[in-house]
Amino acid sequence: MSVIENDIAFVLEVDKLKNIVRKSRNISNDRYENDAEHSWHACLMAITLQGYANSPVDIGRVLKMLVVHDLGEIGSGDIIVYNKNHADVLNELESADKLFSMLELPRHEEFNGLLREFEARETNESKYANAIDRAEPVLQNIHRKGETWKRNRIAYDRIVEMNQKKIGEGSVELWRYLIRQIAQLKENGHF
Amino acid sequence: MSVIENDIAFVLEVDKLKNIVRKSRNISNDRYENDAEHSWHACLMAITLQGYANSPVDIGRVLKMLVVHDLGEIGSGDIIVYNKNHADVLNELESADKLFSMLELPRHEEFNGLLREFEARETNESKYANAIDRAEPVLQNIHRKGETWKRNRIAYDRIVEMNQKKIGEGSVELWRYLIRQIAQLKENGHF
Repeated sequence: MSVIENDIAFVLEVDKLKNIVRKSRNISNDRYENDAEHSWHACLMAITLQGYANSPVDIGRVLKMLVVHDLGEIGSGDIIVYNKNHADVLNELESADKLFSMLELPRHEEFNGLLREFEARETNESKYANAIDRAEPVLQNIHRKGETWKRNRIAYDRIVEMNQKKIGEGSVELWRYLIRQIAQLKENGHF
Repeated sequence: MSVIENDIAFVLEVDKLKNIVRKSRNISNDRYENDAEHSWHACLMAITLQGYANSPVDIGRVLKMLVVHDLGEIGSGDIIVYNKNHADVLNELESADKLFSMLELPRHEEFNGLLREFEARETNESKYANAIDRAEPVLQNIHRKGETWKRNRIAYDRIVEMNQKKIGEGSVELWRYLIRQIAQLKENGHF
């Protein structure tokens, strides 16, 4: 195949992200969200909420990370974040690398680099991208009064433990907003 | 409402993009694609294929345009590009503006600016973003042997007329690849 044929083959292959069904339902309909919808929504949130990032970010780099961040799940499926361990993350990185190997080396390495940066949470961009990635399903769950958390028996303290660090690391303001809503659900007896 | 509450209300409102069903089906499943999935796929294509852009582009700016480019369809619905006229485009820009007015002025203006830049096709970034936006459903249709074109009685010459300029303006190489595939479908009797 020529280079452009390979690149197009990759573009067609990643269409499968639209089949990876997540654990939370959309805000505006009752369908469970898929990873492609989630990735778009995270990008839109990242642009809209960038003023709340703890440190200034290169938003273009944040968007690139969010566009590719779930591609590893094409090979390994979606795992609810509360049950995800280090081996699962490595598994996803490996699946993504296999997918990226359809591309010429420079793009292959760029995509692997974006994923590794995202997972390492060392740069401002990756901290903010992780906060947004985590905040999106939290907003869905707040909207549905904790539906996914209740179904998967995730206790209030565990929700705080799992989200405070990752969201707060990227945006303290966003986390403050979210924890107020989650605490309100608790007060109203939803946990 | 406080500023963050307004911003979050906007983020929840645009979830409706996931309900705007398009005219072509996905590559990897038989569902009709929705605008959120399309917007993500266009972003992924834009990063992957940027080496084929006619002129170097600021990929971050391209991604921002692609993330917001279909938000006007939340108010006005998806219209197949072959039937879309100038009034439809103005209608979409107006719908989008109404949506963006939920945000503070700087972000409201940024989003309107991105949409206007996208529609004007004057900058390298907007030419390339339009080429990608157009190429995505063309790839879906090539994959399904012209299904949407046949169903909507779009003739070969019309497909060329509608896509050659907009795709070629952003990426001559991508258009050359696509027209070879479309011509092959014609040769094989699919038109």
